[in-house]
Amino acid sequence: MIENPFYSPEFHGDYDLVGIGRLDLEEGGSIPDCQLAVATFGELNEARDNAILVTTWYSGTHQIFRDVYIGPDHALNPDRYFIVCVNQIGSGLSTSPHNADGPNADIAMSNFPQVRIGDDVVAQERLLREHFGIEKLQLVVGGSMGAQQTYEWAVRFPGKVLRAAPIAGTAQNTPHDFLFTKALNEAITSDPGFAEGEYKSNADVVAGLRRHAGIWAVMGFSTEFWKQEGWRALEFESKEAFMEGFLEPYFTAMDPNDLLCLAWKWQRGDVARHTGGDLAAALGRITAKTFVIPIDEDMFFPVRDCRAEQELVPDSELRITEDILGHLGLFGVAPTFMAQIDRHLGELLATEV
Amino acid sequence: MIENPFYSPEFHGDYDLVGIGRLDLEEGGSIPDCQLAVATFGELNEARDNAILVTTWYSGTHQIFRDVYIGPDHALNPDRYFIVCVNQIGSGLSTSPHNADGPNADIAMSNFPQVRIGDDVVAQERLLREHFGIEKLQLVVGGSMGAQQTYEWAVRFPGKVLRAAPIAGTAQNTPHDFLFTKALNEAITSDPGFAEGEYKSNADVVAGLRRHAGIWAVMGFSTEFWKQEGWRALEFESKEAFMEGFLEPYFTAMDPNDLLCLAWKWQRGDVARHTGGDLAAALGRITAKTFVIPIDEDMFFPVRDCRAEQELVPDSELRITEDILGHLGLFGVAPTFMAQIDRHLGELLATEV
Repeated sequence: MIENPFYSPEFHGDYDLVGIGRLDLEEGGSIPDCQLAVATFGELNEARDNAILVTTWYSGTHQIFRDVYIGPDHALNPDRYFIVCVNQIGSGLSTSPHNADGPNADIAMSNFPQVRIGDDVVAQERLLREHFGIEKLQLVVGGSMGAQQTYEWAVRFPGKVLRAAPIAGTAQNTPHDFLFTKALNEAITSDPGFAEGEYKSNADVVAGLRRHAGIWAVMGFSTEFWKQEGWRALEFESKEAFMEGFLEPYFTAMDPNDLLCLAWKWQRGDVARHTGGDLAAALGRITAKTFVIPIDEDMFFPVRDCRAEQELVPDSELRITEDILGHLGLFGVAPTFMAQIDRHLGELLATEV
Repeated sequence: MIENPFYSPEFHGDYDLVGIGRLDLEEGGSIPDCQLAVATFGELNEARDNAILVTTWYSGTHQIFRDVYIGPDHALNPDRYFIVCVNQIGSGLSTSPHNADGPNADIAMSNFPQVRIGDDVVAQERLLREHFGIEKLQLVVGGSMGAQQTYEWAVRFPGKVLRAAPIAGTAQNTPHDFLFTKALNEAITSDPGFAEGEYKSNADVVAGLRRHAGIWAVMGFSTEFWKQEGWRALEFESKEAFMEGFLEPYFTAMDPNDLLCLAWKWQRGDVARHTGGDLAAALGRITAKTFVIPIDEDMFFPVRDCRAEQELVPDSELRITEDILGHLGLFGVAPTFMAQIDRHLGELLATEV
């Protein structure tokens, strides 16, 4: 375990750490004392049937949802719903390589086991059932790796998911995404300071984390974001200032092993694991009313890939969201982004199921 | 200077080294004895008016043109035209960081000066005029960085270029391309074996060159190439085998400083340097009949960027070429690629000018 002040309420706001006990993992091994960092918004009603689960993405936490997606003016309205945002295993807030200690001391840092999207979903289901007494979800929604978890929920627990909204992500990770993530990983692991995962501080790996941010710059935004100098909306003077003032510090604050844990999961997200590799069969199991919501300028979860999956989900619609930020439109920076997401989620929540 | 057997006729076939003397550079400094590696196909006619200039791309040489683009069955027909293929400065065959010796010994390796696209074009014009007595070109054609040189020719020497065909490239490099190339560069320079450009052998930098290949895998092909397993057409069994058997050895054979020299040029290609930053004014100078030929699935020279420039070239057409290989469709691997290129170039060469 190492200290990293970034992963604290000071930076992420309030959340609760809820222990769900020992979590046995799909790839073998286990997390002896799995702690999930959970932020909730609104009140669970007496029938316990007004819950929404929000899943998180690579490098993201509940914080972005709290600040951008959730509120009385949004479809994710805490006046109406009990919104549970669960940070991923490896997110740095839930049990993660950098914070494993106490009963988890044996799986700290480079000894952390391989975790799959399905492990997170099993952990989340246990949390909702045992801790909150929630058996049905009005909606599961998440972006990017959060979309992977959303699909996994809808395929694994069809009886529990009334509606699903995977945003900017896929049910089966693509080979291109695998290679993109591999390049991200290699930017980190090639830093001599990484020391095979046994660095003393994330600051030892700052050069690798900065290169990792540089690859995100290429794939995370669209070509048009850079051409139109979209960073000006964030009050930067140049793309270099935007990199140095925003994207690099965003990632260099994070823990390398945590990011690698997430990346390993991302690379292998695949609901067809439930059906012997048959993606159509897996997606055919989904009973949730599903809105598949790609971002039109996404460089690595392109509309084409999202549409191909949507067409395999029985009760589904494709809702393309426009944003020149591309994948990182998920940050909700463009003033037009959340209006589209709210319209899609609002309409989805309004459908009878 | 270091020995690298990759940069030899054994790997690239015959070419001539032609000295054009001292080349003073736009950024200051000079190449004392600039040698251009030139391959020609066909015969120059008596009027010296049947010449075509072919320019080369990042990591590419005349070899790919000889093997794929040029021949009696192609628009670039040596039975009809005298085709001059000039390898870029920094290509490893022409004067380059790794091969600088003799009069160029002072600019070897990390001491190599910064070279611009305009320097290459000035060198090529001198070569054609002084060595071959060529004053007019029926066509200038090249892909990627070759497109940058093509545009530079058409803007800088409008009286000499009757037709121009920039393929999969732009006249003014985009900020997104700059960042992509930066990520490529950093993959190389972050390798401790790079030793600030003073490695003893490219083998010292093999890890960095391999990571550089990994980033090319993400951006060089399209998402659909990987999804459709386009590598099967090249008789590989898996994407990993394709990387290990094709893309990694392709780049690890090369010289790091040479690639960095090319990348520096690529990042700064911009014909608007001739017009105080006014791209429309620069492209408005072009008198050549111009076919702008983007590849539909290109991830970093997208059709949108190529179209925006084409619309600024007076006598021009946009000719979109379809290829799921994306940018690296330029290798001509897809059986449908060259048919399209030949049609476009054939029609261009058939136009009266």
